[in-house]
Amino acid sequence: VSAPGPPAPPTPGSGPALGAGREFDAIRRWIGGDGDLPAEVLVGPGDDAAVLEGGWVVSTDLMVEDVHFRAAWLEPEEVGYRATAAALSDLAAMAARPVGVFVSLAWRRGEETSLDRVQSGVREAARAVGATVLGGDLSSSPGPGFLDVVALGRSDAPVLRSGARPGDVVWVTGALGGAAGAVRAWTAGETPPPSIRLAFARPVPRTDAALWLAGHVPLRALVDLSDGLAGDAGHVAAGSGVAVVLDAEGIPVAEGLADLTGGRAAALELALHGGEDYELCLVTGPDGVDVEAFRTACGVPLVRVGRVEEGDGVWLQTPGAPPERLGSGGFDHLAGGDP
Amino acid sequence: VSAPGPPAPPTPGSGPALGAGREFDAIRRWIGGDGDLPAEVLVGPGDDAAVLEGGWVVSTDLMVEDVHFRAAWLEPEEVGYRATAAALSDLAAMAARPVGVFVSLAWRRGEETSLDRVQSGVREAARAVGATVLGGDLSSSPGPGFLDVVALGRSDAPVLRSGARPGDVVWVTGALGGAAGAVRAWTAGETPPPSIRLAFARPVPRTDAALWLAGHVPLRALVDLSDGLAGDAGHVAAGSGVAVVLDAEGIPVAEGLADLTGGRAAALELALHGGEDYELCLVTGPDGVDVEAFRTACGVPLVRVGRVEEGDGVWLQTPGAPPERLGSGGFDHLAGGDP
Repeated sequence: VSAPGPPAPPTPGSGPALGAGREFDAIRRWIGGDGDLPAEVLVGPGDDAAVLEGGWVVSTDLMVEDVHFRAAWLEPEEVGYRATAAALSDLAAMAARPVGVFVSLAWRRGEETSLDRVQSGVREAARAVGATVLGGDLSSSPGPGFLDVVALGRSDAPVLRSGARPGDVVWVTGALGGAAGAVRAWTAGETPPPSIRLAFARPVPRTDAALWLAGHVPLRALVDLSDGLAGDAGHVAAGSGVAVVLDAEGIPVAEGLADLTGGRAAALELALHGGEDYELCLVTGPDGVDVEAFRTACGVPLVRVGRVEEGDGVWLQTPGAPPERLGSGGFDHLAGGDP
Repeated sequence: VSAPGPPAPPTPGSGPALGAGREFDAIRRWIGGDGDLPAEVLVGPGDDAAVLEGGWVVSTDLMVEDVHFRAAWLEPEEVGYRATAAALSDLAAMAARPVGVFVSLAWRRGEETSLDRVQSGVREAARAVGATVLGGDLSSSPGPGFLDVVALGRSDAPVLRSGARPGDVVWVTGALGGAAGAVRAWTAGETPPPSIRLAFARPVPRTDAALWLAGHVPLRALVDLSDGLAGDAGHVAAGSGVAVVLDAEGIPVAEGLADLTGGRAAALELALHGGEDYELCLVTGPDGVDVEAFRTACGVPLVRVGRVEEGDGVWLQTPGAPPERLGSGGFDHLAGGDP
């Protein structure tokens, strides 16, 4: 096994350890330079969510029409459901139990009849994981619709991105690339097959899976897949000061995705760089996980996708070739392109 | 003293006690009907902020370009400052000490150069009250800019809207109507005088005042003035099951506002119904407050503006006439009009 790179350099400064990308650069500039965190904030910027004294876990997720979705792709209920599920997924990424959500919602003027349907989708996503809608703010919008969901959860032992060590094993839940496949089909003027469409419209926050894992397995690192496996594994690599080597043949792609995209290689590209699957990526020690017990308890597969080595960055291993370094290549929400 | 109305009817259902208005109806529909709050949520929807086990206080505030402000009115720093100050004002309204903010920000495509300036305004408002920017989310917007600010604070004894009793006294900090006066001038194509402009662009969250009051005076109820004094006093009246009778002659209006609007009556109208002053409205027992000590400690006036009686709603007392019932008449952010 070849080492994928030189040892990681010392962590620069005290800013949040995020992977590469323009959006993360902007977030780093913003929240960097404020000095120390308040003592009652146990985990600050740079992980999936913040952790407060008392075990409260807080995350926000912003969804903008014509950036993150198009109205023509989704029913109004799905807009509300998806934005809420995305925020709840950040709690799962900390192994936190969801308690409630606050939702700030601005909706296109003249389309107030669909507002109730958006709100009903918010409620449905919250209820599905035992959370309550605790409050929010409403406005009309003179332009695109916009939802910002704050998810609040609780954990005595949140799982961060920073504990992966060389020799550890990397896993993902479910199958990847479906949400990006649906976007690809829509933007090409096609209709995605139902299961691929649902991967975008109705992502399931892996709350149960995260709580099961936290109760049964010593987890070294945990993130949810919002930026694509390459991008999110990059957050683990940066947060832990290690390299993540992904096994190209082991990465599970969504059912039907290879048919839709014209082959396994294109499907793998979406799994690595497409984003918004809201599955979990976790790192365990070399002893791994009882995948059968996990599947029985949680109803979703858990698949080994790679290993942790000394070094930095994310690498893709294909049979008979040296590991290839991956750029983050996730969707950049500041780039201004359409989704 | 005439009683301003019949005794309050029994509180209907268990929904949040908000005043009148279409925006509040929509919020009621949304968050009503979810049954009981989780046990670890001590105060839920219907007050200025939610209160969590452990004394965490959480509030969100949404600001939409061309609904809540226009880009031509404000420097980018002021957009960030104002949105953050508004969210922090909700913490002051609970007598909570600010700890941090999360900011979700979508900014017009092609105007990314002003993004840093918006973020700098966010940081300035947070730092001014000892809070840290703990995280957030960034996106481009294909339409108007949006900011959603989540403020997190801490309080061992948050002050709600529900403790006012007949015989109590109603007070406000500062002077009212300035922010609405600035909007009125701008929409008429005029330039508001500097102090009136600043009331809109640079509202000061009354954090210090709220903490001083909570430490020195038994507060029966506390809200911040975001919907206009009539609307926010209506929240106190609804939350406490009482009538609030305001003394028309006692209500302090912003300096220069009467000149700008053509007289005291028009200025009073803005103070009652204009909104977004972000001053505090508080209710004390009949013993009141040492206003000189308050002013010395907090650098802002505290003025007696009315009393609490049996009944419901908000009433305006003018000399020599019976009290007149006020509609909420605050700005309705669902109505779709320009600000």
